[in-house]
Amino acid sequence: MRPNNVLECWAQGRAAVSGWLAIGNTYSAEIVGCSGVDCVTVDLQHGMTDVQQMIGMLQAISATPATPFVRVPSCDPAIMMKALDAGAYGLICPMVDNVQQAQAFVDATHYPPTGTRSFGPTRGLLYGGADYFKHADQTIVRLAMIETLPGLEAVEDILAVEGIQGIFIGPADLGLALGKGPVGDPVDPDVLAAIERCRQAAAKAGKHIGIFCTSGAVAARYAAQGFDFVVPNHDANLLKAVLASEVQSARG
Amino acid sequence: MRPNNVLECWAQGRAAVSGWLAIGNTYSAEIVGCSGVDCVTVDLQHGMTDVQQMIGMLQAISATPATPFVRVPSCDPAIMMKALDAGAYGLICPMVDNVQQAQAFVDATHYPPTGTRSFGPTRGLLYGGADYFKHADQTIVRLAMIETLPGLEAVEDILAVEGIQGIFIGPADLGLALGKGPVGDPVDPDVLAAIERCRQAAAKAGKHIGIFCTSGAVAARYAAQGFDFVVPNHDANLLKAVLASEVQSARG
Amino acid sequence: MRPNNVLECWAQGRAAVSGWLAIGNTYSAEIVGCSGVDCVTVDLQHGMTDVQQMIGMLQAISATPATPFVRVPSCDPAIMMKALDAGAYGLICPMVDNVQQAQAFVDATHYPPTGTRSFGPTRGLLYGGADYFKHADQTIVRLAMIETLPGLEAVEDILAVEGIQGIFIGPADLGLALGKGPVGDPVDPDVLAAIERCRQAAAKAGKHIGIFCTSGAVAARYAAQGFDFVVPNHDANLLKAVLASEVQSARG
Amino acid sequence: MRPNNVLECWAQGRAAVSGWLAIGNTYSAEIVGCSGVDCVTVDLQHGMTDVQQMIGMLQAISATPATPFVRVPSCDPAIMMKALDAGAYGLICPMVDNVQQAQAFVDATHYPPTGTRSFGPTRGLLYGGADYFKHADQTIVRLAMIETLPGLEAVEDILAVEGIQGIFIGPADLGLALGKGPVGDPVDPDVLAAIERCRQAAAKAGKHIGIFCTSGAVAARYAAQGFDFVVPNHDANLLKAVLASEVQSARG
Amino acid sequence: MRPNNVLECWAQGRAAVSGWLAIGNTYSAEIVGCSGVDCVTVDLQHGMTDVQQMIGMLQAISATPATPFVRVPSCDPAIMMKALDAGAYGLICPMVDNVQQAQAFVDATHYPPTGTRSFGPTRGLLYGGADYFKHADQTIVRLAMIETLPGLEAVEDILAVEGIQGIFIGPADLGLALGKGPVGDPVDPDVLAAIERCRQAAAKAGKHIGIFCTSGAVAARYAAQGFDFVVPNHDANLLKAVLASEVQSARG
Amino acid sequence: MRPNNVLECWAQGRAAVSGWLAIGNTYSAEIVGCSGVDCVTVDLQHGMTDVQQMIGMLQAISATPATPFVRVPSCDPAIMMKALDAGAYGLICPMVDNVQQAQAFVDATHYPPTGTRSFGPTRGLLYGGADYFKHADQTIVRLAMIETLPGLEAVEDILAVEGIQGIFIGPADLGLALGKGPVGDPVDPDVLAAIERCRQAAAKAGKHIGIFCTSGAVAARYAAQGFDFVVPNHDANLLKAVLASEVQSARG
Repeated sequence: MRPNNVLECWAQGRAAVSGWLAIGNTYSAEIVGCSGVDCVTVDLQHGMTDVQQMIGMLQAISATPATPFVRVPSCDPAIMMKALDAGAYGLICPMVDNVQQAQAFVDATHYPPTGTRSFGPTRGLLYGGADYFKHADQTIVRLAMIETLPGLEAVEDILAVEGIQGIFIGPADLGLALGKGPVGDPVDPDVLAAIERCRQAAAKAGKHIGIFCTSGAVAARYAAQGFDFVVPNHDANLLKAVLASEVQSARG
Repeated sequence: MRPNNVLECWAQGRAAVSGWLAIGNTYSAEIVGCSGVDCVTVDLQHGMTDVQQMIGMLQAISATPATPFVRVPSCDPAIMMKALDAGAYGLICPMVDNVQQAQAFVDATHYPPTGTRSFGPTRGLLYGGADYFKHADQTIVRLAMIETLPGLEAVEDILAVEGIQGIFIGPADLGLALGKGPVGDPVDPDVLAAIERCRQAAAKAGKHIGIFCTSGAVAARYAAQGFDFVVPNHDANLLKAVLASEVQSARG
Repeated sequence: MRPNNVLECWAQGRAAVSGWLAIGNTYSAEIVGCSGVDCVTVDLQHGMTDVQQMIGMLQAISATPATPFVRVPSCDPAIMMKALDAGAYGLICPMVDNVQQAQAFVDATHYPPTGTRSFGPTRGLLYGGADYFKHADQTIVRLAMIETLPGLEAVEDILAVEGIQGIFIGPADLGLALGKGPVGDPVDPDVLAAIERCRQAAAKAGKHIGIFCTSGAVAARYAAQGFDFVVPNHDANLLKAVLASEVQSARG
Repeated sequence: MRPNNVLECWAQGRAAVSGWLAIGNTYSAEIVGCSGVDCVTVDLQHGMTDVQQMIGMLQAISATPATPFVRVPSCDPAIMMKALDAGAYGLICPMVDNVQQAQAFVDATHYPPTGTRSFGPTRGLLYGGADYFKHADQTIVRLAMIETLPGLEAVEDILAVEGIQGIFIGPADLGLALGKGPVGDPVDPDVLAAIERCRQAAAKAGKHIGIFCTSGAVAARYAAQGFDFVVPNHDANLLKAVLASEVQSARG
Repeated sequence: MRPNNVLECWAQGRAAVSGWLAIGNTYSAEIVGCSGVDCVTVDLQHGMTDVQQMIGMLQAISATPATPFVRVPSCDPAIMMKALDAGAYGLICPMVDNVQQAQAFVDATHYPPTGTRSFGPTRGLLYGGADYFKHADQTIVRLAMIETLPGLEAVEDILAVEGIQGIFIGPADLGLALGKGPVGDPVDPDVLAAIERCRQAAAKAGKHIGIFCTSGAVAARYAAQGFDFVVPNHDANLLKAVLASEVQSARG
Repeated sequence: MRPNNVLECWAQGRAAVSGWLAIGNTYSAEIVGCSGVDCVTVDLQHGMTDVQQMIGMLQAISATPATPFVRVPSCDPAIMMKALDAGAYGLICPMVDNVQQAQAFVDATHYPPTGTRSFGPTRGLLYGGADYFKHADQTIVRLAMIETLPGLEAVEDILAVEGIQGIFIGPADLGLALGKGPVGDPVDPDVLAAIERCRQAAAKAGKHIGIFCTSGAVAARYAAQGFDFVVPNHDANLLKAVLASEVQSARG
């Protein structure tokens, strides 16, 4: 089975850098996949795209050196299985509040007897290879998002769920949950403390921790702190920022 | 009829700044339309998109303050009429080599008796308003691209064609035509001389001149020289550049 | 934040008229948005469309004076959040049977601490404006559909749920639930009594009430009775009706 | 080979009534196909659609009793062949100005030795049947549009071209060509005279004549005059008209 | 209402043969529908397609002699209703584990008072006919998939649920559940015993039983055993197999 | 620049085997690309697809070991350039009748000064690599189709055009042109003689010759005769054939 870049990064002790797709398009997906990232995450939750377009985007990412990930919109097993069948090598599940949800995430993404994933790895076979079934459970990365108060309170327990390789922090949602507003790169001490609690919990559990960042510089800062899956913002935000700057320059 | 921002810029004596869409997607189109530009050009020539998607992109641009333009893939009247029917307020025609092609461009984009545009302004009516037919000929901007040797030699004659409001320079193609390679922001004296010839010809003809630029800074430089339609690169290139930089930062 | 036409209609004491889209297409969406309605509802439940196409339809509606609404297919929070992120300013939730479902509707559509909506207003920011987060909770309209027996029995309690601005009647489903068949413009006394119960409950609660109608005339009749959100049938039914009539005329 | 309804209408001496699709959607295409019309024309010229979507629309029409036609955007043989391969049973070619163009239309739509149509009736076989090749040339209807001054002057010659079964009048374009403005249901004597000239020329040639109409009533009037292919307006216009009326009614 | 081929097969005492679509495309859907099968199943679970594309695929199948079925991705009522509204005449529900899920399947797919299906048979009316509502409950086929251990244990009870016409075996998933690996045409005695248990239960209950097969030959074998809904593999697997063979031949 | 498999096959003295896509879908494109072929040709002429979908199909092929080719619908330079910009490494141009058309084919597909290809290799850069411009002219394969009488008569001259690497035979069209009907695997002596003339002309010119075949066995037969680009039928025909066989088997 084709290896998962993110697992290889982790085996080498370095942080994986992930692109993030809010624009639902195969060409921009390929651009992001060719940008030097280790993986690219199709965002089905807040991204302006859906399952149909995700298939083409996963194909476009497959034409690049990057490994395809999907942030699913919820813990719904049907969409998790669909993303895996379409070739996703990693799933990020939003708003995991408790062990039950984390376990449901694990169940839906492992084949029996470990889990309840239905067999039919349509495109997974093409992308992964003929031995997909044998290695899929171990090759797929599962990150549970900690971004709500219940999730934060249960972070140690969620990390203890077998089959979850780590957690992923959504700082804006976490800040909002803590009553501090949706700040992309938080400076509020309570939010920073919550993020630090997650980091320590992951470290203690021997698991991985990722975070959505507002820039490459912020990503580097978190990577230096031990975060090993960092996202230097999504395509739509980056395009917005660079356009604002270039248009202003053009105005002289 | 809803006014054309580009004509208003020109009436106010200032350069219009145009976004440029190589990514064939309605969400990125809307992002570009909201970036402060005066107009947005859907690129049907080199862009990764086609007429079907163009319709949705023109609609998305219509939801922003920017005026929708289309660069058509060739002088084919059928696609010019289609872009106009879909609501384009400006057309940029590539590789205009001579007066005959410039005249064909004018003919296909004016209603009889001036031209031969077929009547059926389907979406044009929704975007432009009920009086679309009355004002369309005058509201639509037509820019002929000068980017080949024959086109350069005929630039004065092309500019003299009534109904063409101006020319648009493709520096990479022009450089290539002059044997100097496809350089986005040319420094070769011969290429610069060719661009200057075009600028002077446009000024002498009392017409407009635009140019595709590699950045906002380059756009500002050309605007300072009298170019009044400048493009601070296209979405795909800007996304590529900002990603390369952010991913490198993330690596630390 | 860009205002919501429906809230403005209500502030002015008049009924909002909504278009309704069963055809999953951006051009017909724009036609409906330009027809003089106050808002346009993309129907993800019975309409022949899905989330991917909804994004383009919401963009097309944004190019018109009408405010975009979405009827979601169920109480699933993931799709509610997606519709809001894509720029919907109102959600209509079908088959609300009880207070728990109504509360889930409210929770999924308010940001913390009021609710549990995840932060990531991708296209909402472009359509709504930079202050989207600040005003979204108050600007978004939430209508719970009363169309089942349990829902009818609980209508007063559902109306009491804070954050729901009103209810919306599906007369065909309500008639079906009452054993009277799916009649679009009901005359059965029991169905009319059920509708009247809803109207009175809404009035008593100081909340709003809408209804799907089979024509503009029926809509006007209900508006005269105090319904303040009326739908003069959907695009597919209107097209069917006018075609039947015109084709018959053409046959002579 | 599955028969062509339009040829059957003509064999029975009655006018064929055609639906007309400006909305590029398969569901509205199917609605129109189920409305009682004899055929449905996908409009690739002024319609908000393109070749990719046309394929799905032709399939949707195939699920109805109506025969699928396509108005191509120009005399380009490539797109004519594509429409036929996709199952179109009739082609309407716009802006035919002279015998050469009419002959090119005939050539591109007949297999050798009669014409130059390339062999590869992909979907034509599924829709038409296994004997498609044998009967296609005779089953396909070709209508040349007369809507320009040169076309009007050459109408008798164009009608004499073997393989063209008739002509089709675009009244708005014809009025525009005659300097009388784009009027859908013309009353200007010169325009009416031009239409009458076409009608007599077709009758004299023993060929068919169609016309685009603004309503079923107008279609019936032309049918009574001998026009045997009438179009009671297109879907977008009909939807616009019925919506305007219903929304006004809803306002009370 | 247009009859359901599968019900007709069963009335005639013969097995229905179903095509199966993993490729999300309307043209391949039409090819499969024209292949001599009784019905065609759009696979929303493991197929590389989604609800939006399903609509076009159901339309394409409607242009063929085959009856359209859908395998939904889960027991979610919203997607079941959507598939029915879009014209599906049969639903196959995966991973039915118990009577509660079977009952939910029945409820979501019958109109009140039998069930809770919401009224709005948008495309169903076009495909089924004007009397759709009257006959839909009886015309729609519902097959519950038995492919998990809990489902196998409850197969007799699931078969007893009124409104379910039968069960459908997924041999690969069933084998996986039994710890024997995902084998498409199982030979393991335990798996065969489980399949036989299902067959006998169905026979005893006087209900139907289908199975996904790896080829026509396997389908014939099962049909000979009394299975009356057989699937000779899906389009993607068949295309893969024939290509492997032809490419090998081409290599000489 | 990423190498072209077809050129490598030729350098090694063996025939390239090409898949052929009539189904316009990215998943089936990827299946074909994974089938062991050297390249895959997207058929824009007779295939049920268009430029927009082609982009996704080329991306899907890029995720496989196969090299992407496109059969364009005509000699129109705009679509040739578009296919190249989208990453096609080979173009097959239908119905080349004479040297002028062959030269136009060459001109449109070479950058100046050799030709007139416009610069803007949008996706070509991502697929080909940063040095795309430097090597594109030499890496791209151009095959002119000989399938008409004029083309057959001019085959020696067409082969002499510099920049065309070879010719491609469409046996059905060629047979049709010769008055022998559209036979996929011709046995008529005149057709075979025409094919042999082409083969000898190519051999004499030191250029390549391809042919569309009805099966792998036929492809092997032609390869044995010296044809070095063979196509073992297209996906739609293969799917049709295998389905017919499997459904018949299933019927027992």
